[in-house]
Amino acid sequence: MKLDKDTKILIVGLGLLGGSYAKALTKKGFTVTAITRSQSSVDYALSEGMITEGRAEPDPGLIGRADLIVFALYPHVFVEWIENYGKYIKPGTVITDVTGVKGCIVYKIQNMLPEGVEFIAAHPMAGREVYGVRNSDDSIFRDANYIVTPTERNTPEAIRLCKDLGHTLGFAHVAELTPEKHDDMIAYLSQLTHCIAVSLMTCSDVPKLKEYTGDSFRDLTRIARINEDMWSELFLLNKKSLISMIDEFSGELYRMRTYIADDNVEKLKEMMRMSTERRAAFDKTKMQEN
Amino acid sequence: MKLDKDTKILIVGLGLLGGSYAKALTKKGFTVTAITRSQSSVDYALSEGMITEGRAEPDPGLIGRADLIVFALYPHVFVEWIENYGKYIKPGTVITDVTGVKGCIVYKIQNMLPEGVEFIAAHPMAGREVYGVRNSDDSIFRDANYIVTPTERNTPEAIRLCKDLGHTLGFAHVAELTPEKHDDMIAYLSQLTHCIAVSLMTCSDVPKLKEYTGDSFRDLTRIARINEDMWSELFLLNKKSLISMIDEFSGELYRMRTYIADDNVEKLKEMMRMSTERRAAFDKTKMQEN
Repeated sequence: MKLDKDTKILIVGLGLLGGSYAKALTKKGFTVTAITRSQSSVDYALSEGMITEGRAEPDPGLIGRADLIVFALYPHVFVEWIENYGKYIKPGTVITDVTGVKGCIVYKIQNMLPEGVEFIAAHPMAGREVYGVRNSDDSIFRDANYIVTPTERNTPEAIRLCKDLGHTLGFAHVAELTPEKHDDMIAYLSQLTHCIAVSLMTCSDVPKLKEYTGDSFRDLTRIARINEDMWSELFLLNKKSLISMIDEFSGELYRMRTYIADDNVEKLKEMMRMSTERRAAFDKTKMQEN
Repeated sequence: MKLDKDTKILIVGLGLLGGSYAKALTKKGFTVTAITRSQSSVDYALSEGMITEGRAEPDPGLIGRADLIVFALYPHVFVEWIENYGKYIKPGTVITDVTGVKGCIVYKIQNMLPEGVEFIAAHPMAGREVYGVRNSDDSIFRDANYIVTPTERNTPEAIRLCKDLGHTLGFAHVAELTPEKHDDMIAYLSQLTHCIAVSLMTCSDVPKLKEYTGDSFRDLTRIARINEDMWSELFLLNKKSLISMIDEFSGELYRMRTYIADDNVEKLKEMMRMSTERRAAFDKTKMQEN
């Protein structure tokens, strides 16, 4: 199966991400349908021309007609959905997702699917601090990364299809990682940063905070406005990697604390030089396509 | 003394901040002169029309003609400068600064000045990840905070003058704090955030980092490109407050780690709700003028 204009795409879960997928794909000329829990989200998406058809319940007919299904659900809802309605997916259909953790999801879902249905997992690294289909915005994919996480059970065709989807959505870079490497990476680059932002915001209570802040505090706490249901679920599903990253980071911060306490200017500067070098390289690195 | 178009303003130290002060004040019609170590910075500022006169050495005549002097130097250079050339400042002159720490500087400088010269300290909370007069840009003051830190030795007139300067430069908000409260605040809102950004950047070495990052990691490490001379000096000068803030933050992050390790979803969500509330209030709070 190849991604072309005849591919019938079904999106399950019209939140910020699902809605942004619908917008981007409809703009590119695909026929997009949706299943989501709330009728008002369906109505909104239809009225905005984001989808051609939608249902507030898992309609077997709509499910059975899809060639490619994108699941944009919370991890546990995704698993429950496949458990209950996976049987309606027709053989030959490829399914993918947007889930922020992989190891605990990918193998489980692959084992649950009917014969002939292939799950190729992906993580679009894009989001906003607002939620719901009404805030969906396909420009969030620009400059963002899209990570495909195949297992040994995936076919080259499905991996190719999933990467094509990432490019079609407008992601700046499409990469490939194993589910395990993805989870370690995400523990560092996304989950740890959210733990830090939350702890920074809750560790001290300053009245009239806004009068004294500079850009650095604003930057570091932007993501402290956090969807507690989604992130607590993601944290616990990636517990081992996340705890190990929190410990790495805490040890490093403690090293810095020691240099400050000991007036060890040279070691302090050495850390800062390394951080500057790495951040500068990170800014400059030209992105390359897979 | 009041700030008006006859006020002759001398800026000592034409770096990013000193240069941005010169630009902003010249635009507003003030006569601005400068003393800075490098002749090429003087030449640049003259050629750009940022100053009317400049010297690469501490010219007693230029110093003696100033009504208001702004010191935009590293803390230890500021102290050395006053030690060597403070005697050239004429009685009636008000001096101010841009130093990022206050307790260890303000009283010391006030004790060193000749009779009739008043030092009223201020901290403009603006900056960029680039340096030097060639990068100066007075738009960095927009939306930013300016904190005046008077002591018992300051006169209401000088405090007023210093606040007027903050408004004239275009700061969104001008606040007042004691040097001690300023240092505690800055330990939390600026120094701790820089320690976190550096530690986050150095705690793990990921090849091809840029292919996997989302906005959150980019936001949290923007300030990890850091001027190691300036920041190591600022950290050590505010050691006590900074270490205490690092400990507060580390304790809070450890609390979060415990909730994750224990699958304590309720406590985890509670922390996230508090962080969301605080960050949302911080976004919304309307700034009020002092």
